[in-house]
Amino acid sequence: MKRREFIKASALLSSTALLPEMLLSESMKKTNQDRYPNRLKPIIKGDVKEFHLSIDIIQQEVVPGFKFHTLAFNDQIPGPEIRVNKGDNIRVVFKNNTELNHTIHWHGMYVPWRMDGVPYVTQMPVMPGKTFVYEFVAEPYGTHFYHCHWGTLLHMQAGMYGSLIVEDSNDPIKRQFPYDREYTLVYSAHDSNFIRNELNGMLERMKERMYLMKNGRFNKERFGVFNTKDEFVESVNNGYQPPYTINRRSPSELPQPNWFTVNGKSYPMTPNLYIKEGENIRVRLINAGGEEHALHLHGHDFWQVCDDGVPVPQPWQMNTVRLSPGKTIDIIVEGNNRGLWTFHDHDTRKVTNNGLYPGGNLLALVYEDLPVEETKLDMMSKKMGLDALPIVALDE
Amino acid sequence: MKRREFIKASALLSSTALLPEMLLSESMKKTNQDRYPNRLKPIIKGDVKEFHLSIDIIQQEVVPGFKFHTLAFNDQIPGPEIRVNKGDNIRVVFKNNTELNHTIHWHGMYVPWRMDGVPYVTQMPVMPGKTFVYEFVAEPYGTHFYHCHWGTLLHMQAGMYGSLIVEDSNDPIKRQFPYDREYTLVYSAHDSNFIRNELNGMLERMKERMYLMKNGRFNKERFGVFNTKDEFVESVNNGYQPPYTINRRSPSELPQPNWFTVNGKSYPMTPNLYIKEGENIRVRLINAGGEEHALHLHGHDFWQVCDDGVPVPQPWQMNTVRLSPGKTIDIIVEGNNRGLWTFHDHDTRKVTNNGLYPGGNLLALVYEDLPVEETKLDMMSKKMGLDALPIVALDE
Amino acid sequence: MKRREFIKASALLSSTALLPEMLLSESMKKTNQDRYPNRLKPIIKGDVKEFHLSIDIIQQEVVPGFKFHTLAFNDQIPGPEIRVNKGDNIRVVFKNNTELNHTIHWHGMYVPWRMDGVPYVTQMPVMPGKTFVYEFVAEPYGTHFYHCHWGTLLHMQAGMYGSLIVEDSNDPIKRQFPYDREYTLVYSAHDSNFIRNELNGMLERMKERMYLMKNGRFNKERFGVFNTKDEFVESVNNGYQPPYTINRRSPSELPQPNWFTVNGKSYPMTPNLYIKEGENIRVRLINAGGEEHALHLHGHDFWQVCDDGVPVPQPWQMNTVRLSPGKTIDIIVEGNNRGLWTFHDHDTRKVTNNGLYPGGNLLALVYEDLPVEETKLDMMSKKMGLDALPIVALDE
Repeated sequence: MKRREFIKASALLSSTALLPEMLLSESMKKTNQDRYPNRLKPIIKGDVKEFHLSIDIIQQEVVPGFKFHTLAFNDQIPGPEIRVNKGDNIRVVFKNNTELNHTIHWHGMYVPWRMDGVPYVTQMPVMPGKTFVYEFVAEPYGTHFYHCHWGTLLHMQAGMYGSLIVEDSNDPIKRQFPYDREYTLVYSAHDSNFIRNELNGMLERMKERMYLMKNGRFNKERFGVFNTKDEFVESVNNGYQPPYTINRRSPSELPQPNWFTVNGKSYPMTPNLYIKEGENIRVRLINAGGEEHALHLHGHDFWQVCDDGVPVPQPWQMNTVRLSPGKTIDIIVEGNNRGLWTFHDHDTRKVTNNGLYPGGNLLALVYEDLPVEETKLDMMSKKMGLDALPIVALDE
Repeated sequence: MKRREFIKASALLSSTALLPEMLLSESMKKTNQDRYPNRLKPIIKGDVKEFHLSIDIIQQEVVPGFKFHTLAFNDQIPGPEIRVNKGDNIRVVFKNNTELNHTIHWHGMYVPWRMDGVPYVTQMPVMPGKTFVYEFVAEPYGTHFYHCHWGTLLHMQAGMYGSLIVEDSNDPIKRQFPYDREYTLVYSAHDSNFIRNELNGMLERMKERMYLMKNGRFNKERFGVFNTKDEFVESVNNGYQPPYTINRRSPSELPQPNWFTVNGKSYPMTPNLYIKEGENIRVRLINAGGEEHALHLHGHDFWQVCDDGVPVPQPWQMNTVRLSPGKTIDIIVEGNNRGLWTFHDHDTRKVTNNGLYPGGNLLALVYEDLPVEETKLDMMSKKMGLDALPIVALDE
Repeated sequence: MKRREFIKASALLSSTALLPEMLLSESMKKTNQDRYPNRLKPIIKGDVKEFHLSIDIIQQEVVPGFKFHTLAFNDQIPGPEIRVNKGDNIRVVFKNNTELNHTIHWHGMYVPWRMDGVPYVTQMPVMPGKTFVYEFVAEPYGTHFYHCHWGTLLHMQAGMYGSLIVEDSNDPIKRQFPYDREYTLVYSAHDSNFIRNELNGMLERMKERMYLMKNGRFNKERFGVFNTKDEFVESVNNGYQPPYTINRRSPSELPQPNWFTVNGKSYPMTPNLYIKEGENIRVRLINAGGEEHALHLHGHDFWQVCDDGVPVPQPWQMNTVRLSPGKTIDIIVEGNNRGLWTFHDHDTRKVTNNGLYPGGNLLALVYEDLPVEETKLDMMSKKMGLDALPIVALDE
C-alpha cells in the first residue's frame, strides 16, 4: 500500500455520516468573529491617531451559566485591539468611569517614561471620574498589549487588558512566511472568589480614600505612601505597621485561578482558528494572565516566529509552545494536514471550568475546506441520539 | 600545582573506602534496565507494522511502601515504547478492558485527523470492552509520546502515557553528536488523593452511562453532550445547568501533585543513566505530566539538541533544562567528568515523596568505568555503621 | 509634528514639580550598593585562592517590620559573591556553626565529583561544628551559584545560596556588547511558615541524631539511610516503614511561598539598577528559589546573552525573560530610553509581600542622569501632601 492510499484508507475507516454543516457555516463564522477583539477606530487629528478608552464595571459571561463582575475597557474583555503602524503618533484618551484608581501600561512599547503608566513612579493614578492622556510613538514592531498597572494583581485578572499590534509595511514575518489571515488570542486566568472579594474590598477602601482626599485629610501612612525609602523606614522605626505585617484586608492565600480564558471566554465558547489547505495563518499569542501556559497543537508542528514582538533570528518548529506571564509569541501554522484539531494547555488543570474538565483554554483549529466525505459520523453517535459530531462535550 | 594535579589531589582528599560494587555491578544494571520502558514488538503484516495496546486497572508501586490504582497500557507505567522508522505504516489495535471510556492521542505525530484520538471531535470514545484501530504513517522524526485524551486531567496522571520514537536511518543528531547509548525518561506528577477520588467517581458515573445507553435512554444534557454550540446555549437559556455551575462531582480544588515520577517510579527507585568516560549519551525527556520541570545536571553542561522532536538549528549548552507539560526535549551528555552525579528538578518540591525530601524525580548519572580508587569512603561513614557510600538517604 | 517633538511634548504633559533628589543622590546610591552581594576576598596561598565560608542562624529583615530566622553564609543573605578567573585553583574552607547538617554544591561548575556537595553521594554531610574543604578549578566561564544540598527544600529557601562568577579576561559578552557596569540579582521565594516549622523540626531531629551518633547508636533505618537499594527494599519487605508512608514530621502540603526576594530583600527594599543614557549594563539573574519567574522590563527590549553562563550563539531581544528554578540568565540592557522604569515578575502573585500587592521582586531601573526638568511632579501629588514622586507605595 502506498503512503497516500494508506492514509486515505485510515481516514475512511471511521467515517459514516455528515459533519455538521454548522461548524463550517457562514453563521458559525460570523459568531466566531465576535470571539476576537474588535479593532478600535482612531480619530485622525493631523499626524496623530487618537484613540478613546474608558473603563467601567460590567458582568462578563465566560460561559453560559457563569458570569462575574469585571473591569472592562470599552465594555469588552479583552479591551478593543489597538492596531497601528510603526512610527505613528499615538494619543490615547483614557476616561475612568469607576470608583477605583487605574492607569494604563503599554507593555512592550518604547514609550516616554512619564507615559509608562506605573502609579506613583511615572504618574499619579487616574482617579475616579478623571481622564488621562497618553501620548507616544508606536514602536517597536510586533505583538504587544496594554493593561492597568494599579493594583495589578486584581485589576489585570479582573479584565483590564487588550492587544496592541504595531504593523510594519515591510513586515519581516510576512516576507519569510507569507500568510493571508491572522488571529489574536489573549490568554488569562481568573480566581473568581478572589476577584469578588478583592473588588468589593477595593471599592470600600476607595470610598474612604476619596472622602479623606476631598477633605484634605489624606494620610500618607494610612495609604502606605512615602516620598522616600528613608521616610518609610523611619516611620516603621517610630511604630508604623506596614500593611503586610498585619495583613488587615487581604485573604491569607494568593489567588488560585479556577477559570482560564482566551479572549475572555472559556471552552466551549472559545474562538476557533479557521484555516484552509495550503494556507499559512499567523496567530498572535498574548499572556495577559499570571499563569504559565504550555499550548499544544494537534497534528502539526508550527513555527515560533516572534518573541515579545521581536522576530526570532533562526526560528524552528515545535508542537507545544510555552507562553509565560507577560510574554507574547507569534506562531505560523501551515495548513498541511486537513481536519479538526485542538489547541490547548497541556497542563490540563487549565483545560477546566471551575474544576471540571474539559473547559478552560481549549479551542479548535478548523479546516474550513474540509471535504464533506471525510466528515461522516460513525454508528455509535447515532445510537446515542447524536446526528452529528458533537461540538460540545462537557462531561468527560 | 598544575590543574590536573590539583584536581587529582582534591579528588583524593575525602576518599578512604570502597565504592559499593553493587552500584556498578551487572545485577544492578539489569535491575536498572527494568526501569526503562519495554519496547513493544510489532507484528509485520505486509508493509504495515501492527502494535497491540490494551488498557487495564493495576496497582503501581511508585516506591516500596506506596502503591496506587492506575490505568496502565499493557500493565505498565509508562506504557511500552513504540519505536518505528520514519515513513513506516503503523497500525495500533487498542483494546479497552476497563469500565471507563478512553482514546489514544498520538502527541506530536502528523496523523490523519480521524486518527487523532480526541473524543467527540475526531472519534467517538472507545467504550468499555470495545476495540479501536488507529492507522497512520510514522512522521515526523523524533521523540514523541502517546496518551489517553478522554478525561485527560485524570487519565494522564493515572498512568495512560508511553513514549513513541520515530527514527531516521540518517539521524541528524547522530551525525552531529555521535552517540552509542540512549535513554528515555518519561516524567509525570500525580495527586494520589485526586486520582483515588476521581477514579472511583468516574467508575460510578460510567456504570450509569452504560446502563442508560444500553437501554436507549442516553440523555445528552445529562452527559453534557451537544451537537452544536447553539444547541448548548439554547439548553442553558431554557434552564439547563452545565456541570461547572453546580460542580456536582468534583473536588473544589484542582489537583496538587504529591508524587513525582520518572518512568513511573520515584526516588530512590528511579532509573540511573549509565555513561562511560569519552562517551556521548542521548537522553529523551518527555513531560507527560501537568507540572513544569527545571531539570539540573550536576558537573556537566549538556546540549539541548531537539525540541518536540525537531532538531534545534543552532544548539547550545546548559546545565538546567525546562521541560514544560506536553514537551519533549532531547539532550546530549558528554562523558567528560567522571563520577556519580545527580539529575533532578531544581524546584525541589518535586524532589519529594508525599511531602518528604528527598524523593520524586531525583536520579543519578553514573560513570560505570569509575576507577575503584576514587570511590573510597571516609571514616565518618564507618562510624555510622555504613560500609559503603549509602545509595539511599531518605531523611535529610 | 516631528517624532522627537512629539515625544518631548508628551513627556512634559504631566510634569510640574521636582523629582526627589534623594533618588539620584549619593547617599541613596551608597545604600543601594549594600543591596548587592559583597565580594568575598580570597587569601592567596601559592597558586590557590582560598575562601572562607561559615554558616550560622541569623534573623533576616526582608522588609521593615518583617524578619525571619534563616541560615546565612557569613551572616549574609545571599551569601557573599565568589568571583574568580577561569582556570583559577579554588579552595573553599566551609565551617558549620549550626546544629544542622550541611554541604555546599557548586551549581554549574565542572568540579571533581567528590567536591560536588551531594550528601551521601559525593561526601558525608558536614556535621555540626565540623569543617569541610572544597577544592576545584574555576570553570566554566559565566554566572553560577553555590548552595546547600542537604535538606535542600528547606535549606535553600532558608537562605543558603550565593553567586559564583567566573570571569574570562577575553570576555565574549564584553566583546559583543561593551558594558561598564554589571549587577548580580539573586532571586528566591520563601514560605515563612514552612521555614519556621521545618527549621524547628530539623533542629529537634538533629539533637536526637547527634546524641545517637556520639553514643554509637546511629540506626540506619531510623534515619532512612541504606547502603544499597536492595537493602532498602528488603527492609521494607521486612516491615520497615519509610518516612513518606507515615509522613511523621512534615506538613501535609508542599511549601507555598509568601515572600519573594531579590538579594534577600522584598520591595520596597529591593536594589535599584542604575544606568546612564548611552550606557550598556549587564545584569546577572540567578534563580536560587523554587518558583518560575517571568521578569518584565518596562520601556526597553533587552538582550538575553547567556543561558546558565553559556553565551547564546545568536541572541535576540525581549522584554520579558523566564527565569526557571536553578537557571542563570545574563541580560544586556541598553540605556536608550531615559526615565524611571520597573522590572518585575509578570506573575504578579510574586509582586506581593505576605499576600499584599505591591511587594516581592519589584525593583527599578533608574537613569541616574535623568534631567531635572523631566522629573517635576503634578498638582495632584501636592494636594495629597506629597512634595515629590513617592518612592514607596504599599497600598494599591
